[in-house]
Amino acid sequence: MSRQKFYLEKLSCFFQIRNLLLRQALAECLGTLILVMFGCGAVAQLVLSGGSHGMFLTVNFAFGFAATLGILVCGQVSGGHLNPAVTFALCLLGRERWKKFPVYFLFQTIGAFFGAAIIFGMYYDALWDFPRAFNITGKDSTAGIFATYPGKHLTIVNGFFDQIIGTAALIVCILAIVDPYNNPIPQGLEAFTVGFVVLVIGLSMGFNSGYAVNPARDLGPRIFTAIAGWGSDVFTARQGWFLVPIFAPFLGTIIGVMIYQLMVGFHVEGEVRDKETAAQENVRLTNISSSDNLKNAKK
Amino acid sequence: MSRQKFYLEKLSCFFQIRNLLLRQALAECLGTLILVMFGCGAVAQLVLSGGSHGMFLTVNFAFGFAATLGILVCGQVSGGHLNPAVTFALCLLGRERWKKFPVYFLFQTIGAFFGAAIIFGMYYDALWDFPRAFNITGKDSTAGIFATYPGKHLTIVNGFFDQIIGTAALIVCILAIVDPYNNPIPQGLEAFTVGFVVLVIGLSMGFNSGYAVNPARDLGPRIFTAIAGWGSDVFTARQGWFLVPIFAPFLGTIIGVMIYQLMVGFHVEGEVRDKETAAQENVRLTNISSSDNLKNAKK
Amino acid sequence: MSRQKFYLEKLSCFFQIRNLLLRQALAECLGTLILVMFGCGAVAQLVLSGGSHGMFLTVNFAFGFAATLGILVCGQVSGGHLNPAVTFALCLLGRERWKKFPVYFLFQTIGAFFGAAIIFGMYYDALWDFPRAFNITGKDSTAGIFATYPGKHLTIVNGFFDQIIGTAALIVCILAIVDPYNNPIPQGLEAFTVGFVVLVIGLSMGFNSGYAVNPARDLGPRIFTAIAGWGSDVFTARQGWFLVPIFAPFLGTIIGVMIYQLMVGFHVEGEVRDKETAAQENVRLTNISSSDNLKNAKK
Amino acid sequence: MSRQKFYLEKLSCFFQIRNLLLRQALAECLGTLILVMFGCGAVAQLVLSGGSHGMFLTVNFAFGFAATLGILVCGQVSGGHLNPAVTFALCLLGRERWKKFPVYFLFQTIGAFFGAAIIFGMYYDALWDFPRAFNITGKDSTAGIFATYPGKHLTIVNGFFDQIIGTAALIVCILAIVDPYNNPIPQGLEAFTVGFVVLVIGLSMGFNSGYAVNPARDLGPRIFTAIAGWGSDVFTARQGWFLVPIFAPFLGTIIGVMIYQLMVGFHVEGEVRDKETAAQENVRLTNISSSDNLKNAKK
Repeated sequence: MSRQKFYLEKLSCFFQIRNLLLRQALAECLGTLILVMFGCGAVAQLVLSGGSHGMFLTVNFAFGFAATLGILVCGQVSGGHLNPAVTFALCLLGRERWKKFPVYFLFQTIGAFFGAAIIFGMYYDALWDFPRAFNITGKDSTAGIFATYPGKHLTIVNGFFDQIIGTAALIVCILAIVDPYNNPIPQGLEAFTVGFVVLVIGLSMGFNSGYAVNPARDLGPRIFTAIAGWGSDVFTARQGWFLVPIFAPFLGTIIGVMIYQLMVGFHVEGEVRDKETAAQENVRLTNISSSDNLKNAKK
Repeated sequence: MSRQKFYLEKLSCFFQIRNLLLRQALAECLGTLILVMFGCGAVAQLVLSGGSHGMFLTVNFAFGFAATLGILVCGQVSGGHLNPAVTFALCLLGRERWKKFPVYFLFQTIGAFFGAAIIFGMYYDALWDFPRAFNITGKDSTAGIFATYPGKHLTIVNGFFDQIIGTAALIVCILAIVDPYNNPIPQGLEAFTVGFVVLVIGLSMGFNSGYAVNPARDLGPRIFTAIAGWGSDVFTARQGWFLVPIFAPFLGTIIGVMIYQLMVGFHVEGEVRDKETAAQENVRLTNISSSDNLKNAKK
Repeated sequence: MSRQKFYLEKLSCFFQIRNLLLRQALAECLGTLILVMFGCGAVAQLVLSGGSHGMFLTVNFAFGFAATLGILVCGQVSGGHLNPAVTFALCLLGRERWKKFPVYFLFQTIGAFFGAAIIFGMYYDALWDFPRAFNITGKDSTAGIFATYPGKHLTIVNGFFDQIIGTAALIVCILAIVDPYNNPIPQGLEAFTVGFVVLVIGLSMGFNSGYAVNPARDLGPRIFTAIAGWGSDVFTARQGWFLVPIFAPFLGTIIGVMIYQLMVGFHVEGEVRDKETAAQENVRLTNISSSDNLKNAKK
Repeated sequence: MSRQKFYLEKLSCFFQIRNLLLRQALAECLGTLILVMFGCGAVAQLVLSGGSHGMFLTVNFAFGFAATLGILVCGQVSGGHLNPAVTFALCLLGRERWKKFPVYFLFQTIGAFFGAAIIFGMYYDALWDFPRAFNITGKDSTAGIFATYPGKHLTIVNGFFDQIIGTAALIVCILAIVDPYNNPIPQGLEAFTVGFVVLVIGLSMGFNSGYAVNPARDLGPRIFTAIAGWGSDVFTARQGWFLVPIFAPFLGTIIGVMIYQLMVGFHVEGEVRDKETAAQENVRLTNISSSDNLKNAKK
């Protein structure tokens, strides 16, 4: 076994990447791949089995727990955002550097692309066996396995609003979970809690357009479907719907950050700052009085 | 980035609220908003999709985990009651001051109102597309998305009893979870456990009238529906049913507090008190004997 | 508020019970009441709603999480058995005194009786509204809400075997969870894990006869139904089936204890004993050699 | 009671096994038995009840939580692999010795065999009552209760690919969970997290062929069915499908290990190594300089 250890060590040294940002980007890529692979896999199972092996609830569970697992896989390295909107929120609050944003966005999209590709390969036979293979619109369209499309009842304006609310709700909950001044859960359970947030969003906000609330999760698989056989219609369908899950989440992020900070965040943060100021003030006063004492003593 | 930090600091100072009760009330408001937004959102998804995107189980999950998330968001600031009945129980036991009760009740109701408003906006198109939009009675009535209405089989007396039992069960479980003398779960998991309580109540006590067990969660959305287009019938439907989920929960709270205290609470509390008394007695005796020794020594 | 605290203190002193066994029995009673109230409530919701507000999965969830909540409510006081079979297993292994067994059995059965009574009161209107109210046999019979009855395909022999296996599986898992030499989970999560055990047993062993695996949970509600209007047929139905969920679980307990101890328990226990013996041996040898040294020194 | 303790001690000494590997193998056997008993039990409940007591989601839950419970029962003794593919992955990474692999594989298969046997006994009456008892192919075939068979749409090549992806996904997640350099979850929650992994794989990768992703879980029950009455057809069905869930998972394991190590594992490992090297370098430099000082001092 010592020989095995030797070769493993050698391999490890050979492939080790020392650039921190690249390492984090790779981890985000794998995390998002896992999110999309399990999430879209559950949609594929629901659609392609005609409902016998899934229902909307199983899709919600899959996306929720897939988020948990994706965060667990990459969280220690990259923070486990899996979502450009989350990266954006943390940049807005000054907790991550802005230059991370485009890099994470890119690698999250690449991860989502490959996650979709794996599911496409896995269900290749089932897809060809499906009567409406490569349909984009209509009920149980196979394009909906990978990217989101709005329901028939939804206008673009309401759809935009839907994505804003969904992302704002996601961001409010995530900010509460990771707020350093408001640590409500034991260390190490963040991933599970975020999974519950994604699950609940799916349970209550999934009917309009399938709760993307994540530009990378939607864009990556959509590009994949365009290449894999559904064609450019995936971009033109429903008057350019594909732009909504890209831009609305960022607007929702801003609103979510504002709501959380105004109603909870600023106050818990301020309380800590007040205490620190008071403590420093105390120290200063003590110093003054002790220097007074010194002066007195010198007299 | 230092400039960003500077502006964030400035914003934080500008919006910081120093009044503790107001801060707590705001946090309760946001927590209840999250509870109602996710919970009623799941009902909306079930009703408006005609069952394709939800079922009663998904509503139960949504309310349960929404309670968890609402508590996580505001718990560190305000305690995370989200329910006037919980505030009432803690006041009864002398763990919160009575003046908190009306303030929390008001802000919880306001939070529930806005939670309902958000869902109304989110599913605006779906609502207009629904064949029975703005119906109050009947199966799958849209008013039932927001506030609770009794099933056809239910009399007012049984409905009152139903709300009493549901709230009593909720309070017994919550008291066990937060009892300082009977700490059954690791620090930080209270929110998850309360979520399971709400989930289980939904699984087993939801058939009669939709398990409000929370005056604010029912009243806020009901006022919203009265304004938003369903009209004053939401108050007059079923001989003034709307009063039941407001008053029965408080009666249920009293019963729940009594049951828990009589069967578990008083005894674990008393055990601790007995030990303390014994320890003090010991100290006293030691003092006496040592003073005796002193006297003896003086002789 | 000080006056309120004074009266609360007085109440607490007045109602405090100092007998430990009685206190534990009361706690078991409340815990089992919660288990049966939520569990049978879910069955009632499923049966009386005709499937619109529940399915077999919701019953499984309800029984699982109800076990969790029941254990949380009483666990710190009485250990949270909720099941005479669990008490029996712990007595067999010498971890509880045998005199606890009949007392716990009695109070668990009383708790289950009142749990059933609460559900009967809660769904009184729905029960009278139900077309097959007070039926004992047949699909969706209302007697099945409270106690278990075998499926049509089941013979008494297979039913007995079914209860033995179910209880043995329950006991193996519970012993692993609470084994002091094999502590696999963090302190305080036992209740949740036991809830998962009950959930899984329901998911995979519930089809034959509704997985009682608990003499108290079955007997208490059955006595209640006999009184409440279903009559003595609840005992005579299916050739005295009611005896199976009373006696088979204890046999299953013995088998479960044997399997766990033979395959895991004895070995982890023995390992600890071996280490202790080795340590003592070491001490003895050290003493001998040091006394030798002393002798030598004396020479 | 002291007499009971005495006999228990004696029994414990008599049955204690001191050979570590045998003890571990027995524990793995019991763990896998629990996994298969609960998992296949849920399939049996779904198939034999004709869908009234289960659905595909309940099977997913059962396999997921059964994995959790199996790991809890044996994890402290044997590591809780329950799956030769997991043992293989840990051997590949040099964390377990290779000689464990065949022993674990054998006992895991034996455990799975007996798990299937228990379910066969439990649902014996229901099986004979079932119209298509002892069918191997076709919808709701009873052979599918125990071992996996591919869906009609699936070719052998796609099925092989399906098993590779499923196992690779499983291994990536498990490696992240147990990676000593990337400890994302609190001690003691590994079993629960692995349960979620199995659940998610079932939710999103179960449609093709029932997500065996475990050679022992598939082979043991298949041998049992061959003996119990389904005959040798269980091996010849679908052109020797039974070989796919035996060999594909090991290939998937290799791919999973490579992906995780290349994208996350090597880098976190390397980071730790870099720090250690730097620390040693530091020590060496300090020694050199201090020996220089000594030399200087001597001059």
